[in-house]
Amino acid sequence: MSFQNPVFIPGPTNMPEDLRRACDMPTLDHRSPLFGEILHPALEGVAKVVGTKKGEVFVFPATGTAGWEVALTNTLSPGDKVLATRNGMFSHRWIDMCERHGLDVTVIRREWGEGIDAAAVEEALRADPAIKAVLATHNETATGVVSDIAAVRRAMDAAGSDALLFVDGVSSIASMPFHFDDWGVDVAITGSQKGFMLPPGLAITVFSAKAADAVEGAGLPRTFLDIRDMRKGYAAGGFPYTPPVGLLNGLNLSCRRLLDEGMKGVWARHHHIAEGVRAAVEAWGLELCAVSPELYSDTVSAIRTPEGFDANRLVAHAATRYGVAFGTGLGEVAGKVFRIGHLGSLTEPMALAGIATAEMAMRDLGLEVESGSGTAAAEEVYRGAGAPMAMAAE
Amino acid sequence: MSFQNPVFIPGPTNMPEDLRRACDMPTLDHRSPLFGEILHPALEGVAKVVGTKKGEVFVFPATGTAGWEVALTNTLSPGDKVLATRNGMFSHRWIDMCERHGLDVTVIRREWGEGIDAAAVEEALRADPAIKAVLATHNETATGVVSDIAAVRRAMDAAGSDALLFVDGVSSIASMPFHFDDWGVDVAITGSQKGFMLPPGLAITVFSAKAADAVEGAGLPRTFLDIRDMRKGYAAGGFPYTPPVGLLNGLNLSCRRLLDEGMKGVWARHHHIAEGVRAAVEAWGLELCAVSPELYSDTVSAIRTPEGFDANRLVAHAATRYGVAFGTGLGEVAGKVFRIGHLGSLTEPMALAGIATAEMAMRDLGLEVESGSGTAAAEEVYRGAGAPMAMAAE
Amino acid sequence: MSFQNPVFIPGPTNMPEDLRRACDMPTLDHRSPLFGEILHPALEGVAKVVGTKKGEVFVFPATGTAGWEVALTNTLSPGDKVLATRNGMFSHRWIDMCERHGLDVTVIRREWGEGIDAAAVEEALRADPAIKAVLATHNETATGVVSDIAAVRRAMDAAGSDALLFVDGVSSIASMPFHFDDWGVDVAITGSQKGFMLPPGLAITVFSAKAADAVEGAGLPRTFLDIRDMRKGYAAGGFPYTPPVGLLNGLNLSCRRLLDEGMKGVWARHHHIAEGVRAAVEAWGLELCAVSPELYSDTVSAIRTPEGFDANRLVAHAATRYGVAFGTGLGEVAGKVFRIGHLGSLTEPMALAGIATAEMAMRDLGLEVESGSGTAAAEEVYRGAGAPMAMAAE
Amino acid sequence: MSFQNPVFIPGPTNMPEDLRRACDMPTLDHRSPLFGEILHPALEGVAKVVGTKKGEVFVFPATGTAGWEVALTNTLSPGDKVLATRNGMFSHRWIDMCERHGLDVTVIRREWGEGIDAAAVEEALRADPAIKAVLATHNETATGVVSDIAAVRRAMDAAGSDALLFVDGVSSIASMPFHFDDWGVDVAITGSQKGFMLPPGLAITVFSAKAADAVEGAGLPRTFLDIRDMRKGYAAGGFPYTPPVGLLNGLNLSCRRLLDEGMKGVWARHHHIAEGVRAAVEAWGLELCAVSPELYSDTVSAIRTPEGFDANRLVAHAATRYGVAFGTGLGEVAGKVFRIGHLGSLTEPMALAGIATAEMAMRDLGLEVESGSGTAAAEEVYRGAGAPMAMAAE
Repeated sequence: MSFQNPVFIPGPTNMPEDLRRACDMPTLDHRSPLFGEILHPALEGVAKVVGTKKGEVFVFPATGTAGWEVALTNTLSPGDKVLATRNGMFSHRWIDMCERHGLDVTVIRREWGEGIDAAAVEEALRADPAIKAVLATHNETATGVVSDIAAVRRAMDAAGSDALLFVDGVSSIASMPFHFDDWGVDVAITGSQKGFMLPPGLAITVFSAKAADAVEGAGLPRTFLDIRDMRKGYAAGGFPYTPPVGLLNGLNLSCRRLLDEGMKGVWARHHHIAEGVRAAVEAWGLELCAVSPELYSDTVSAIRTPEGFDANRLVAHAATRYGVAFGTGLGEVAGKVFRIGHLGSLTEPMALAGIATAEMAMRDLGLEVESGSGTAAAEEVYRGAGAPMAMAAE
Repeated sequence: MSFQNPVFIPGPTNMPEDLRRACDMPTLDHRSPLFGEILHPALEGVAKVVGTKKGEVFVFPATGTAGWEVALTNTLSPGDKVLATRNGMFSHRWIDMCERHGLDVTVIRREWGEGIDAAAVEEALRADPAIKAVLATHNETATGVVSDIAAVRRAMDAAGSDALLFVDGVSSIASMPFHFDDWGVDVAITGSQKGFMLPPGLAITVFSAKAADAVEGAGLPRTFLDIRDMRKGYAAGGFPYTPPVGLLNGLNLSCRRLLDEGMKGVWARHHHIAEGVRAAVEAWGLELCAVSPELYSDTVSAIRTPEGFDANRLVAHAATRYGVAFGTGLGEVAGKVFRIGHLGSLTEPMALAGIATAEMAMRDLGLEVESGSGTAAAEEVYRGAGAPMAMAAE
Repeated sequence: MSFQNPVFIPGPTNMPEDLRRACDMPTLDHRSPLFGEILHPALEGVAKVVGTKKGEVFVFPATGTAGWEVALTNTLSPGDKVLATRNGMFSHRWIDMCERHGLDVTVIRREWGEGIDAAAVEEALRADPAIKAVLATHNETATGVVSDIAAVRRAMDAAGSDALLFVDGVSSIASMPFHFDDWGVDVAITGSQKGFMLPPGLAITVFSAKAADAVEGAGLPRTFLDIRDMRKGYAAGGFPYTPPVGLLNGLNLSCRRLLDEGMKGVWARHHHIAEGVRAAVEAWGLELCAVSPELYSDTVSAIRTPEGFDANRLVAHAATRYGVAFGTGLGEVAGKVFRIGHLGSLTEPMALAGIATAEMAMRDLGLEVESGSGTAAAEEVYRGAGAPMAMAAE
Repeated sequence: MSFQNPVFIPGPTNMPEDLRRACDMPTLDHRSPLFGEILHPALEGVAKVVGTKKGEVFVFPATGTAGWEVALTNTLSPGDKVLATRNGMFSHRWIDMCERHGLDVTVIRREWGEGIDAAAVEEALRADPAIKAVLATHNETATGVVSDIAAVRRAMDAAGSDALLFVDGVSSIASMPFHFDDWGVDVAITGSQKGFMLPPGLAITVFSAKAADAVEGAGLPRTFLDIRDMRKGYAAGGFPYTPPVGLLNGLNLSCRRLLDEGMKGVWARHHHIAEGVRAAVEAWGLELCAVSPELYSDTVSAIRTPEGFDANRLVAHAATRYGVAFGTGLGEVAGKVFRIGHLGSLTEPMALAGIATAEMAMRDLGLEVESGSGTAAAEEVYRGAGAPMAMAAE
């Protein structure tokens, strides 16, 4: 494995040097006023990145998994009913968490590769008005499927549901369009290591006023992840415990970079890079796990390998022989897909390095893929962009 | 605030450059075998640092507060009885966490500045054999008081108690003597940002077999902090979610450095630096918060300022005027003490810079302290050491 | 320009992170014994890299241009005769330096793209036995031409010449076969920023005993670049003036990495990467500046663009549009060639990123190059290697 | 030696982290326009720092010693007469360089510890109107003596001399008042590793128009150090050879920091820190090498140890036992003085760490110095400053 090659796992992503440096801070007294000068702009930056003017941002020194737990434990009580769609590994795990926390989960099962079925959500909510929360995975990292969150909200409204809408945006936020306020999201969850291009270590959550109000009645126990302590800490320019100062400093700079580029530019850049990867997949004669174009994720492509071929071998071979990391298939699609992560700070030449390497690795293992075919297809997509990608510049 | 001055808060501590660099890693695929080569030696290193051959180490991407929660939620059920001594801010907070998690806490109140009263522990356990866990804060960071954990264990044994012994070693482990196996500790908790000299971001916990066995019956809900998922992840060379690869890489190197120096050397070094600080305090004519010498902490000194003087002003002035961070008093001793943290990687010259600065700051604010008095006293202590401090060399 | 894309200028080259970090040292007292522990292994490492057991290494805080001057001023006097072959920009500049230092230069002019004509060297030496030094540019960075230094030495011997042999190995040493002792080199010159993969800032020179003996009679004035002061400094574990400690620390580590890989491995790796680039050039239907295969450089390829096309536009476009740096043509081949540097730490995926980018840039500017053609050709070359490239691993 | 302790050698100095990072750049194509955006502001910054509106700045990838050579070889011819005052090791070495370059040097010998005798300069110039250059060492780093350059210029004018005035400002520029234009300096020389707080590796020179005009007639040979090539390179946004991009990037930021603070602030800060050190020396009952107060250097103090005591032992002991680097005595004062460098980025607490360490080391070796005496004296000086030092903040 060479640290000079880009990585193509769907996170942690390639970190621009200035963000790494922002995280690698010398020790700062987190009880000094300087800390607030890092914390508050970071929180405000996150709000802008997710598209909220009214939401409240809570950042924990943890990971996205803890972010899921933040959503549940700050709003719900044991025995509460929640509705969740299961269409990949990460939605599956979140459901498992609900069960372990004593929630009563209704699961809408979908094939992996499909998106959230808003109609089924509406139906389930009509059938059970007691449902307190709907869990939606915006972008299934395991299958490369993006779901329509606005449609889920419309379904909830149509059903006259009063439930909260929790959205896992771990692999979508800061990379693909996300509209917290417009979509009526109640809790959004992400981490530092994907679109924010930072090391792992931050669970980033955003609460609507309605979700935040639920905290007093929420019966699930919590202390480390309690938003009330966090809120009190922020108000005093601090944290309820030792904050991850360096990562917050990185988050602050990351938001500034994203917002300077403009979120529309960020989303367009991700779409552009993804289109090149998808053109390569087509040129290879392979198919995506995502079953239809409107589900194609702009942050990760899960690529089905031919029947009888173990996709894990491909990932292992690319790592061992070429020092390049792709993602394996997880859960139900383990061995059936390999994944190319294309989110975060990834230039066209970096993407082409990954595509060319995938090509070599597939040929090495006997897949019938033409040398240079995917690269050529991606090159033509990339050439089509009139102007250089903004994020390329540091 | 200058990043060139050492910090004298009792953590996060001054980070040696090689540890900072070990943490600041480029993105590594955490599902590749390389990750196991970082993780496993780090876990083994921690076991050696805390003095256990039988304990099981679990490291979470979180903070010490989460570490407390790991201990509680993996071993206890709502309504379970626990016994805790309250003698400072951090023991106070841990008790609060117990209450918020629905545990039934018996509190032994002690003056801040005193240590744990083992006799009272014995008495309480005799009075209530249903107590399932004893919570002990080894080193109260707020008061600079170290308690005798071996005595607590003896008290438990004398009472014939079957309770688990949970020890908060956040500001003692990797700095002061800690003997997990010999003391019969069941869960020990610390963080990355104190004796390990790393950035914050790791909750480091160690479980005895007895504590680990309690996990199946533990009724408190948990997922992010469940040691069973963690154990399963480790066994496969991974984590149940995205691991903080850089911090674990730093932890690995930190343990290697500590163990190369030898834990006895590490403890002696901390004692030596602390003795200099205490000599300075005496020369200034001030008193420690800790009420007797056997309670003096080798990692932090809480220094009482004269009646009527607001100690917070001193901390603010030292930061603003000299760019040096000391710790304020917390909770019951807020405004009454200031704290000099002297743990982690701190050389004699660095300690002297802090002592001299404290001296200047006290004089600036009108305290009757003789210029150079504390420095002179500390110099004589430091000169007494025959050999250079090992950790000084990188 | 993105710092995440690799560079394809023929130096300064892509720096592996560990070498950058070795250079980025905190201030070390260069008069302490610690400095000698950095300096001496670095000097010994260089000797092994260039293949000498008897040569003496002198490293100056300067650049390769100063290295040329070190060779001249430490061995020659004004009016001395020297013989030089001119077949590119760098040999041209070295000749200019001779003239400015009052030497009497006989120039053997060759077309740019050709190598050194050993027969002409022999002839010139026979014609003028007073020639004191022969200047040979091992690898012409401007044209991508490697010359046969062993043949030059044979020509000198055949002519019975007593002249010193000075070899500019700036873009060959540490990348292509170099045999100081076996080839009878008297002074070899290189820099830190090419095969050693470090920042610029070191002029690295190696002297044979014969060359070193010439220093006492050398009439050209020098102080900063005098090898006698340097030698005296080294003997005392120091430098005659402030040494570039960080760069020397980097040089030490760089040599260790190169020697751990084995010089044969290093050379094979460079040849392998170069073969891929050359396959791409052929697939594009373009020609190298180097006129025949035995002259092909394994560190840089100068590629002729079609008549009437300004090659500089290509370099500017690749930089502006794709953030990738290639080399322009220099001197006589300005506008006629563009250069792909492929030396130092360059993996196969990195090379493919450069090839794919060149392809896109050429098509953007209307050159008739097939998309993916060069990439496909290079992929097939790279796949041919049975094992991963050693240097890829850090 | 600990990298966490500050260094007290009179250069290379303690580097603020942001300057180190600015120097540690990834590879940038130095032929791209981006390089000019680093180079030109750096050159303009240097001009402002030395106080010139008309002078021309030339920065070479070399050291201060090369800077001396730049001055001589670009303006003089073999046999030219120069006048130099010798009052320390560095003026001694510059004179040696003149001799090795075939110049005819008249030396005005002064005791080490004294400054330049302007009257003697005037006398010598009257005696020999053919003298082409006067060499003046502004701050003798070996003795801690600053000389009056304005007085030297007045002496030259009084003598009606047409000679050029060359000033070695290696350890004064960017730390002590320097007025290139006002003092009528013709060539000023410094390096990157002192007041500019960067790693070594840059010879920074400034030429008056008169000095620059001398270049065409200058008969001393030079290529690497020729200002004409440099000027031509700069005009095209580049360098005549591979530039030290990272160091220039650091120089750019260093100038910005210095100029943002304001040169008067920089000088006052150095004076303030130096006053503390001098108060300590007096409290120890020791004397400076500099014979009178107006000669006291604000960047380095050379401190005489008692007769019969080998000052080198002190430096060795402080390094070995406490990990702190002081400067040894050089040349005529070797073993008689030790030096405390107090230039660059040095806070009051850092200075106190050095003073306290010197105190301990002296006592360890049996010198009769009172513990805490110097520290107390310095503390009182430092407390006297009403406001925090600007540079302390990063």
